[in-house]
Amino acid sequence: MKKEFAVIGLGRFGGSICRELIAQGMEVLAIDIDEERVNEYSEIATYAVIADTTDEAVLKNLGIRNFEHVIVAIGDNIQASILTTIILKELGVERITVKAQNDYHEKVLRKIGADQVVHPERDMGVRIVTNLVSNNVLDYLELSNEYSIVELIAGIKMDGKTLLELDIRAKYGVNIVAIKRNEEILVSPQAEEKIKKGDVLVVIGAYQDINRLEKKMSEE
Amino acid sequence: MKKEFAVIGLGRFGGSICRELIAQGMEVLAIDIDEERVNEYSEIATYAVIADTTDEAVLKNLGIRNFEHVIVAIGDNIQASILTTIILKELGVERITVKAQNDYHEKVLRKIGADQVVHPERDMGVRIVTNLVSNNVLDYLELSNEYSIVELIAGIKMDGKTLLELDIRAKYGVNIVAIKRNEEILVSPQAEEKIKKGDVLVVIGAYQDINRLEKKMSEE
Ligand SMILES: Nc1ncnc2c1ncn2[C@@H]1O[C@H](COP(=O)(O)OP(=O)(O)OP(=O)(O)O)[C@@H](O)[C@H]1O
Ligand SMILES: Nc1ncnc2c1ncn2[C@@H]1O[C@H](COP(=O)(O)OP(=O)(O)OP(=O)(O)O)[C@@H](O)[C@H]1O
Ligand SMILES: [Ca+2]
Ligand SMILES: [Ca+2]
Ligand SMILES: [Ca+2]
Ligand SMILES: [Ca+2]
Repeated sequence: MKKEFAVIGLGRFGGSICRELIAQGMEVLAIDIDEERVNEYSEIATYAVIADTTDEAVLKNLGIRNFEHVIVAIGDNIQASILTTIILKELGVERITVKAQNDYHEKVLRKIGADQVVHPERDMGVRIVTNLVSNNVLDYLELSNEYSIVELIAGIKMDGKTLLELDIRAKYGVNIVAIKRNEEILVSPQAEEKIKKGDVLVVIGAYQDINRLEKKMSEE
Repeated sequence: MKKEFAVIGLGRFGGSICRELIAQGMEVLAIDIDEERVNEYSEIATYAVIADTTDEAVLKNLGIRNFEHVIVAIGDNIQASILTTIILKELGVERITVKAQNDYHEKVLRKIGADQVVHPERDMGVRIVTNLVSNNVLDYLELSNEYSIVELIAGIKMDGKTLLELDIRAKYGVNIVAIKRNEEILVSPQAEEKIKKGDVLVVIGAYQDINRLEKKMSEE
């Protein structure tokens, strides 16, 4: 059974949520006060309507409380974002995700019962820094305050060596989960596997251990 | 040796990059045309200056070409963002990352030699959808078009069963890389390990296989 989503606000953030939900086979009602944006999404979303969501009657008529999950992606107009969230909550919407502009906005949203508050610009800033700081780290997944899974690019130092020779587990206490070579993925590689320069090592371990390995790898 | 970064534009995106770089021990020159924003970051960044970066002489005087990596986080004023990037390139800055507002903006930025172009709002929209669509998926790392690592929440169905009993590898073709229980991480869990409801399983595999497992897990 498909879940039904409504996305309010079709800027870059709300718009990309709408596209991606559709790509994943979901049904999406797209709403914006701006006619042009609604026209743009009328071909993409399951339904698209022009509406001012700060008007309770309008949201009621749209049957919004039948939607399982509503995403409020109104940004700059904090008042409209808050008012919309209050109405959604009053109408009994089960799950509400809201984009916040700043800490004050988040605080109010939590108080009035938003289930999830997101800060896309801020969160993306944090995400790309890992990328900026290191030349070897491609991407990562935070598991806890201590552990993560990181994609590291193998340099010339490792070229032609087997995992056995490199002995990364004993030396650094991290495990190699997979090796990415071109578009191929080797899951749980064997000890005899030879690393090639440019391979992406997917490693799991404590931050400090992965950092030690990463520093060692970037000395050329 | 520390790398030197300059961040131009201290909105939410540029601001969070600045904070995170500092948190990771980097040196950061923070630049904005707006005095108030510069004041805010003068306590956070290594240096903070008020400057209009569309003025070549200003950037020259700041010695910008000595910075290893410059991040242009000017958003709404596309013209200022493009002009700043052109000047940085002409002054010989090694690595330039720029925030784009839309596809047109990105196209121009690539043409004039930006090394990395990012769309924070759009990318974050895509990221959170995985979260919205599934109740069991906590977070993920895309490895390729086919493979990913996903954090799945174990439900009542798995409660009290060992990995051997569940036989996930044979049934779904995915591997359990780690188990997250409270703040503890069990890397490469043994076959006799008993799953508890609420455990987070960190699994690696093909998208379709992980999806099959995830669907099975959410039937309660
Ligand atoms: N009361 C309202 N009812 C419905 N839609 C609204 C309302 N107020 C604003 N919107 C819509 O919300 C959308 C997002 O608003 P925002 O001000 O964040 O624009 P944006 O900066 O283009 O978005 P983004 O930061 O996601 O790119 C806009 O398309 C706007 O028309
Ligand atoms: N010519 C310029 N030189 C230096 N800084 C500039 C220039 N033009 C704009 N800026 C600064 O860039 C910052 C980001 O601009 P933007 O219009 O994207 O603001 P914002 O929406 O607050 O940012 P964000 O989307 O990251 O929250 C602002 O603080 C602005 O003062
Ligand atoms: Ca915005
Ligand atoms: Ca995480
Ligand atoms: Ca902006
Ligand atoms: Ca990735």
